[in-house]
Amino acid sequence: MAGNAIGQIFRVTTFGESHGLSLGCIVDGCPPGLDLSEADLQIDLNRRRPGRSKYTTQRHESDVVKLLSGVFEGKTTGTSIGLIVENTDQRSQDYLKIKDRFRPGHADYTYYQKYGIRDYRGGGRSSARETVMRVAAGGIAKKYLKQEIGIEVRACLSQMGDISVENFDWDQIEQNPFFCPDVTKLDALDALIRSLKRNGDSIGAKLTVVASNVPVGLGEPVFDRLDADIAYALMGINAVKGVELGDGFGVVNQYGSQHRDELTQQGFKSNHSGGILGGISSGQDIIAHLALKPTSSIKIPCDTINVDGETVKVVTQGRHDPCVGIRAVPIAEAMVAIVLMDHLLRHRAQNSGVSITPRRI
Amino acid sequence: MAGNAIGQIFRVTTFGESHGLSLGCIVDGCPPGLDLSEADLQIDLNRRRPGRSKYTTQRHESDVVKLLSGVFEGKTTGTSIGLIVENTDQRSQDYLKIKDRFRPGHADYTYYQKYGIRDYRGGGRSSARETVMRVAAGGIAKKYLKQEIGIEVRACLSQMGDISVENFDWDQIEQNPFFCPDVTKLDALDALIRSLKRNGDSIGAKLTVVASNVPVGLGEPVFDRLDADIAYALMGINAVKGVELGDGFGVVNQYGSQHRDELTQQGFKSNHSGGILGGISSGQDIIAHLALKPTSSIKIPCDTINVDGETVKVVTQGRHDPCVGIRAVPIAEAMVAIVLMDHLLRHRAQNSGVSITPRRI
Amino acid sequence: MAGNAIGQIFRVTTFGESHGLSLGCIVDGCPPGLDLSEADLQIDLNRRRPGRSKYTTQRHESDVVKLLSGVFEGKTTGTSIGLIVENTDQRSQDYLKIKDRFRPGHADYTYYQKYGIRDYRGGGRSSARETVMRVAAGGIAKKYLKQEIGIEVRACLSQMGDISVENFDWDQIEQNPFFCPDVTKLDALDALIRSLKRNGDSIGAKLTVVASNVPVGLGEPVFDRLDADIAYALMGINAVKGVELGDGFGVVNQYGSQHRDELTQQGFKSNHSGGILGGISSGQDIIAHLALKPTSSIKIPCDTINVDGETVKVVTQGRHDPCVGIRAVPIAEAMVAIVLMDHLLRHRAQNSGVSITPRRI
Amino acid sequence: MAGNAIGQIFRVTTFGESHGLSLGCIVDGCPPGLDLSEADLQIDLNRRRPGRSKYTTQRHESDVVKLLSGVFEGKTTGTSIGLIVENTDQRSQDYLKIKDRFRPGHADYTYYQKYGIRDYRGGGRSSARETVMRVAAGGIAKKYLKQEIGIEVRACLSQMGDISVENFDWDQIEQNPFFCPDVTKLDALDALIRSLKRNGDSIGAKLTVVASNVPVGLGEPVFDRLDADIAYALMGINAVKGVELGDGFGVVNQYGSQHRDELTQQGFKSNHSGGILGGISSGQDIIAHLALKPTSSIKIPCDTINVDGETVKVVTQGRHDPCVGIRAVPIAEAMVAIVLMDHLLRHRAQNSGVSITPRRI
Repeated sequence: MAGNAIGQIFRVTTFGESHGLSLGCIVDGCPPGLDLSEADLQIDLNRRRPGRSKYTTQRHESDVVKLLSGVFEGKTTGTSIGLIVENTDQRSQDYLKIKDRFRPGHADYTYYQKYGIRDYRGGGRSSARETVMRVAAGGIAKKYLKQEIGIEVRACLSQMGDISVENFDWDQIEQNPFFCPDVTKLDALDALIRSLKRNGDSIGAKLTVVASNVPVGLGEPVFDRLDADIAYALMGINAVKGVELGDGFGVVNQYGSQHRDELTQQGFKSNHSGGILGGISSGQDIIAHLALKPTSSIKIPCDTINVDGETVKVVTQGRHDPCVGIRAVPIAEAMVAIVLMDHLLRHRAQNSGVSITPRRI
Repeated sequence: MAGNAIGQIFRVTTFGESHGLSLGCIVDGCPPGLDLSEADLQIDLNRRRPGRSKYTTQRHESDVVKLLSGVFEGKTTGTSIGLIVENTDQRSQDYLKIKDRFRPGHADYTYYQKYGIRDYRGGGRSSARETVMRVAAGGIAKKYLKQEIGIEVRACLSQMGDISVENFDWDQIEQNPFFCPDVTKLDALDALIRSLKRNGDSIGAKLTVVASNVPVGLGEPVFDRLDADIAYALMGINAVKGVELGDGFGVVNQYGSQHRDELTQQGFKSNHSGGILGGISSGQDIIAHLALKPTSSIKIPCDTINVDGETVKVVTQGRHDPCVGIRAVPIAEAMVAIVLMDHLLRHRAQNSGVSITPRRI
Repeated sequence: MAGNAIGQIFRVTTFGESHGLSLGCIVDGCPPGLDLSEADLQIDLNRRRPGRSKYTTQRHESDVVKLLSGVFEGKTTGTSIGLIVENTDQRSQDYLKIKDRFRPGHADYTYYQKYGIRDYRGGGRSSARETVMRVAAGGIAKKYLKQEIGIEVRACLSQMGDISVENFDWDQIEQNPFFCPDVTKLDALDALIRSLKRNGDSIGAKLTVVASNVPVGLGEPVFDRLDADIAYALMGINAVKGVELGDGFGVVNQYGSQHRDELTQQGFKSNHSGGILGGISSGQDIIAHLALKPTSSIKIPCDTINVDGETVKVVTQGRHDPCVGIRAVPIAEAMVAIVLMDHLLRHRAQNSGVSITPRRI
Repeated sequence: MAGNAIGQIFRVTTFGESHGLSLGCIVDGCPPGLDLSEADLQIDLNRRRPGRSKYTTQRHESDVVKLLSGVFEGKTTGTSIGLIVENTDQRSQDYLKIKDRFRPGHADYTYYQKYGIRDYRGGGRSSARETVMRVAAGGIAKKYLKQEIGIEVRACLSQMGDISVENFDWDQIEQNPFFCPDVTKLDALDALIRSLKRNGDSIGAKLTVVASNVPVGLGEPVFDRLDADIAYALMGINAVKGVELGDGFGVVNQYGSQHRDELTQQGFKSNHSGGILGGISSGQDIIAHLALKPTSSIKIPCDTINVDGETVKVVTQGRHDPCVGIRAVPIAEAMVAIVLMDHLLRHRAQNSGVSITPRRI
């Protein structure tokens, strides 16, 4: 129950620390017969990779994934898939200064209190470096969902600081280093990041994830609802402090007569629900938003305590993202893809046996 | 994997439908030796009970819980606890009109598509009536947490429509039918509900849950983080569309230098994080917010489709809450208590064996 | 993790004690659309019922099961099924004498040491009375397997004391109170039980379970093998001390050239494996054997200790089976049916998505 | 739910095939603060290693394990532990001849039917080569159990063919290549293996596992009983067809007056139960036996079918063990250690919170 796994039927378990030898994961439950190669997974790993642009951390990791098992002659066999990514650009000496003091806003203090021991190098297991394996595993889910079902899971930056996306164009997202769908905001984003770097500060962000072409019927009725599992998966990304489905917190001052998405023979009239009703996908686009806090790894000194409980100053050295929200875009996609994949398989488990009225899955 | 359960070690599995004979649950994993009676659980069941005030649904259920197992001579035995609540005031005939048509904004359409069969009486399993068992099970968690650890989990209404709480006083919460901590807002809330009833409409709400006196160290590092599991548990409540920890979506335009909660020998200087760092409790108050949509069960007719896919009109009969957020207050407490209880036991499982430096748990 | 549940996708969680108000269970994961009534489940409950013949315990329980949820208009809905059976013939006063002393061979001592508290009335949760819910839940699995897939799960007595079955006739099993397939052994069994009753003693037994018409392909490759899960399920029945698949312990002095079941176009030449190869069903009959110890609830006094650790004498009062193996026949069927049902759904989850070469499931 | 994992709290998930690049596993849930090095794990890996003596397979694998995560400065951190072992001596060409035909007694046919695809090289995932990771993971459990609790888990050969151990001396076990505790049987075992090699045949075996110094109280009451989980773990070892606890199948013709282990102030008078009562450890030695079939990989040709369903002849090439029971000794220890470790942590989870009467754990 140490919790390093996600999913019930499509289950991903990860290991590895920021400055360890390597990171890895096991994907258990992938159906057999899926075409799968390392190149398939490298696409998203490259999108998430540190050092990819001047706007993200300058740690240089090639993040080359190796497929160690579960694939034979180019196809998945139905058995467990082992994946590994080696760490190559650790600079552990950067962290000697914080060996005995806890960086505020990080997991340093809570890990130490929980376990009585702490790998202080780059945050150890609490580092967002761990998400490299989520992206690798999510790549398998994304490929299966797209190829076998037609589901596409995409994410983008929708706000950074006060800069909100206004024009939404999916085609722009891969054209700029911010995963921003609004070309008119790129200059402002560039200016904001430059100013943050100058000041040694960081900023929060809001992302949007959209899963399209999801069949109706995914999700379980009570606890393991599709929205609950998406909330779990997104809130579990480092730095996330809020998750919304559909209109999210906007529903607080809506009336029932406004919010309910009426249905006609031609389909739903609106999508306030974000594609999920009663915890089960409605066949509309699934729309989720997430809020990421500004990283606490900044160059401005602050107060903290050390392992002896004394107040001391700390400054975070090392190479960090001024806005961790940017590189979280492929991570958010991976998490939603893993949840959808798991619920697709769960749905099949329970429902494919009895002959019932035709439905869309 | 049908998902009618929550928790790994402290595990709650529920059954029952809105208009079935009874609802029940099994609580597996409660430690032995806890004083427990039906009266302990009735407290929160009464707070959630329908028909308790003129502001909520007029369905009258006494919601008397029976303890069927797992307790011997007033103490838990460590074995599974069976709980049952009988339904007494079903009016299934109210639902005959929607037998073949799907109420928008409800789970009618998605259940039918998922399962090919639907208990249309009061929404069947998708009804919030199911939450009666969550409150009963959560009562066990709340009692254990408070008595054995000192943790207190409380929730309140923080916004309804445009009416936001400004003065926060926990002592007020049980003094008014809205669970509102701000006595100056009661008249406005009363007026809003009256107006909704007149118009046959409904409104959304925002709730706040605070868990105080939580020891540092609860939560697992990567996927099963404490914040992720809280998000899962709260998003899994009927009608919830958003969940925040600490500053939530407010972090999007915060700077790192603002957000990080500095530490000194005297403790944390602030609590932007909402009491969780790196997925693990920090020892500060855990603060979560949730947004509940306005119920779609309103008296204003609208378009929908029937089981043959034809566009038809529908009006929801039956007895409904104008603001489902009110009665969700004890439900939100129960869900957070279940999550904390589960993580407390998970923490014990992994950590109590090796003698490590003293810590607060 | 308190372990009162079996199955991953078809999951059965039970509650209840020997002398509590009632016993119950929740069956989560049953596919929708299955015809299901209380009468379906009563068949096996009656076969297991105490007081059914003079050869078993004289506790009289009608064991009437109530279906509380998950079925609508005679069909399962895909949501969780609540079942309950009330206790009616407890004689708790019989157990006052053992309140403070531990019956050897029972769970009295281990429960007390584990939990620090013990419901001494009839063994509390450790009583085989709990298996009434396994039989009820197993009845759902049996019905689904037979109706939807054609799988039949049957068990019988194959040995009691030194009396071994020699002539195997399934048709005899429901014709005698021993579930014995060999009509020539009935007199000997009758004489043995009479002699045991006279002496206040008890005897062990061996049962055989056969699942026929199982499709090839059920079972997972490594840990959750079909044979491993059957071993878990059968060893988990009260009093079971051994489990065999196919030739079982007979393989110890077999040669590889004898044991391997050769294959031809006409099928397997033999079934030493008991229908499972590499943890996966081969399409042959699945054959398992289990050994049940003689119950320790006998009228012959013996030594034990009391809660203060002092040596004392104990005699078991109450009404007991001279051979618990008899009534374990429907329990063994139920356990194997639950395992097969779970693996059928697990198989569907992982495999139905990709179009692969035709196969028998 | 693809089942490549064992354990609930101490959870081991494995990946890898006989002829893949490498095998690996993740151990999740190990408590923090345990001294752990690769050398600790190498001990049992060497005991299991192929090519270790002339009595086992001549495939030469050094089976060097690498610890990739979860250990910092020589101590476990409480986070997930990644382990890897590279394959170095695959001879995949040996298997080209069976590419399209199914070896009887192996998983070839069932895998192919289940998944529609099969890694035929050395049995792929169904190979006992996979158990290398069970031994590595079990090494962590064994170290923790011994160092922190004092529990020792040991296994030995107790029968091969008709040769049964008569004199039991643990000290002999590491002194001979058969893990045999009876020095008087070594010549007979040597002769038997030589004869098998001459004839190209194989033989079955019986092993005994003993866990000593186990505290009373481990195991859950109903389904996840300690005996049930041991049965699951041992039956899940390749080639195992039977599992016994204590007197096992010997109980069938025992009387209750013989079997029950009486208790006195000085302890139990006997141990027919094998150290488990009501599914919970009694504090006595836990004694389990397992039967392993003779491997079907022998040099004597036989009938089988090919992928087109036609009857064909097959002879197994490759390098095989004449008695797979020998090398299963450390595997059986590992499996029982993993189960005990998991139940130790499960026990702590549920029980350490309430102050109850002192007990031995």
